[in-house]
Parts: sequence; C-alpha cells; structure tokens
Amino acid sequence: MDTKQKILSTASKLFYEQGYNSTGINQVIKEAAVAKASFYQHFPSKEDLLLAYLVTTQENTDKEMRAQIAKCKTPREQVLALFDFLSKLARQTSFKGCNFLNIAAELPNDQGKVRSIIRKQKNGIRNLFAEILKPAGKEDLADEIYLLFDAALVSGKVYADVWPVKTARKIVEKLI
Amino acid sequence: MDTKQKILSTASKLFYEQGYNSTGINQVIKEAAVAKASFYQHFPSKEDLLLAYLVTTQENTDKEMRAQIAKCKTPREQVLALFDFLSKLARQTSFKGCNFLNIAAELPNDQGKVRSIIRKQKNGIRNLFAEILKPAGKEDLADEIYLLFDAALVSGKVYADVWPVKTARKIVEKLI
Repeated sequence: MDTKQKILSTASKLFYEQGYNSTGINQVIKEAAVAKASFYQHFPSKEDLLLAYLVTTQENTDKEMRAQIAKCKTPREQVLALFDFLSKLARQTSFKGCNFLNIAAELPNDQGKVRSIIRKQKNGIRNLFAEILKPAGKEDLADEIYLLFDAALVSGKVYADVWPVKTARKIVEKLI
Repeated sequence: MDTKQKILSTASKLFYEQGYNSTGINQVIKEAAVAKASFYQHFPSKEDLLLAYLVTTQENTDKEMRAQIAKCKTPREQVLALFDFLSKLARQTSFKGCNFLNIAAELPNDQGKVRSIIRKQKNGIRNLFAEILKPAGKEDLADEIYLLFDAALVSGKVYADVWPVKTARKIVEKLI
C-alpha cells in the first residue's frame, strides 16, 4: 500500500469507528505510521482527508452494491438483495450506521463540498434503485425504497440490532 | 428563567445547531451569561449537560407530538398529522434533523447512559404509534411507521428539503 492509501485507509477506519470530530490528525499519522511531512503533502488539511474518505467510500459502496445486484435476476430480487446485504452489515459488531449520514450529523452546518458529496452519494442510491426498478416499470418507487434503506441504516445503528432492517425489508416487499 | 434552565436552553440550541462535539463548555457559559462556578454547580460535567439536554428534548418532543394528535380523530388522521408536523419542521431553515440521531452519530461508541436515553426516546415514538394504531387493530404497523418517521427526519436533513417527508407520508398512506 502506498503512503496516501495507508493514510486514507487508517483515517477511514477511525472516522467511521470514533467519528470525524473525535479523530485528530496526529492519531491518523501515528496509526498509519507515516511521517508528518508526507501526510501534509498528500492531505494539506483535515477537510481534504475527509473529502477523500467520502469519495472513496462512495466508490467502494457503489461497487459492493452493484456486486450484490449482479447475483440476482428480477428487479424485486435485486432490491431485496440490497436489504439482505444491509442485514449482514447490521449484524457486525463494527457496524456504526451510514458513513455519510454520520458525517452529516457531525457537521450540521456544512453547506459546502462535504454536504454536496453526501447528497451525491444519496442520489447515487436513489438512481441505483430507479435503474433496478425501471425494467419492471416501477421506477417511481425508487425514492420510497431509498428512504427505507436509509431508515434501516440509521435505526439499525441506534438499536445495534437487525430488526430495523427486517422491518424495512417487510415494507419493501409490500411496495414492490 | 433560572440559571439551570438558562444554561440548558443555551446548550440545547448550541448542541442542535452546531453539534455536541463542536460546542465547548466555555461557549455555553458565555452565551448563557452565567458564572462558571454556578455552571459547574448545576452540571459537573459536559456529559451531565448532554443527558439533561436529551431528557428535556425527549419530554418536549413527546408533548408536542401528543398535542398534534389531540387535534385529530381517527388513527389514520393522527398518524398523518405527525408527518405533517414533521413537514413543518423540515421547512424551517433551522432544521438540522433529529436531535437524538445526531448525538448517536456524534458519539458512535457510546454504549452507556446516552445511548440508553436515545433508545428510550425512539421506543417512545414506536409506542406512541402503537397506541394510536391500536383502536384500528393495526398496532403491528407501528415499527414500520416509526422507521419511516426517522427516515424522513434523516433524509429531510441531508437534502434540506421537504420531499423526503412527503415520500415517507406517501408510503404511510399506502400502509394504513
């Protein structure tokens, strides 16, 4: 792993596990075992690191979700596969909810680049559901299913339990 | 307003507007215009202030929600009135989503008193929906409607827009 990736992967883990505001740059430098100067060379500010974290997480999440879909045939199966994927995540003890919504809650007044990446990620999920549902002529359900997806992420975290995902899946089954 | 209330109301505003981690005790003391000694007399630690914020917000939210319900007759009308109430909140420029979910996102590793108050508040909303829906024999929908309520709060904030609340309301209309 090169230095930049090492920093990013350490920061991603810390931002998700302990929160963005609770993570200092010095902790990232220490745990990534990189030199301070090379850290600042790659990420001049903590916000640069945050933006890189959000962009790569968005790309990885998109890839993972598309891999889940690829296994299924019908739109209905594909949508439900994404909720099953969420069930698996919610069962992990390391599950802390949605990377993007957590940052949104930590930076309530941000209206700049950060908020715009978060919206882009959420729009990506809405579009993914629309794409899946289009062949069934049900793309108008995309936003409703997106909402349930986010709801499952958020409540699954508050309860540290899988029941919110199951409940969201139950509604989805009724809708499609 | 007495000193304790003055501190609590200032802290509540700051915690909601700028986040818990971004709010220092000194800012609360300054903006509440109270003496440092009397602050610590009422709230020995920042966590004590957080707990008081969560408990009073929970009580106020519960009162507000019950006032909305009191205006309506049928279970269906009562449930929808709560989503309309949410619409009003989401339209305000000061809207930053759910006080409780924001704290949960800011303190991802808290498994103590804070998380327990957040779950208690969420259980209160689930029970409120169950209570409303019971006369219609539909209390088994309570968790589904609670999920949609939280979804609307969270996405309404990310988008700073009222469409997520409208979308959630649309699903609720189909369900009940």
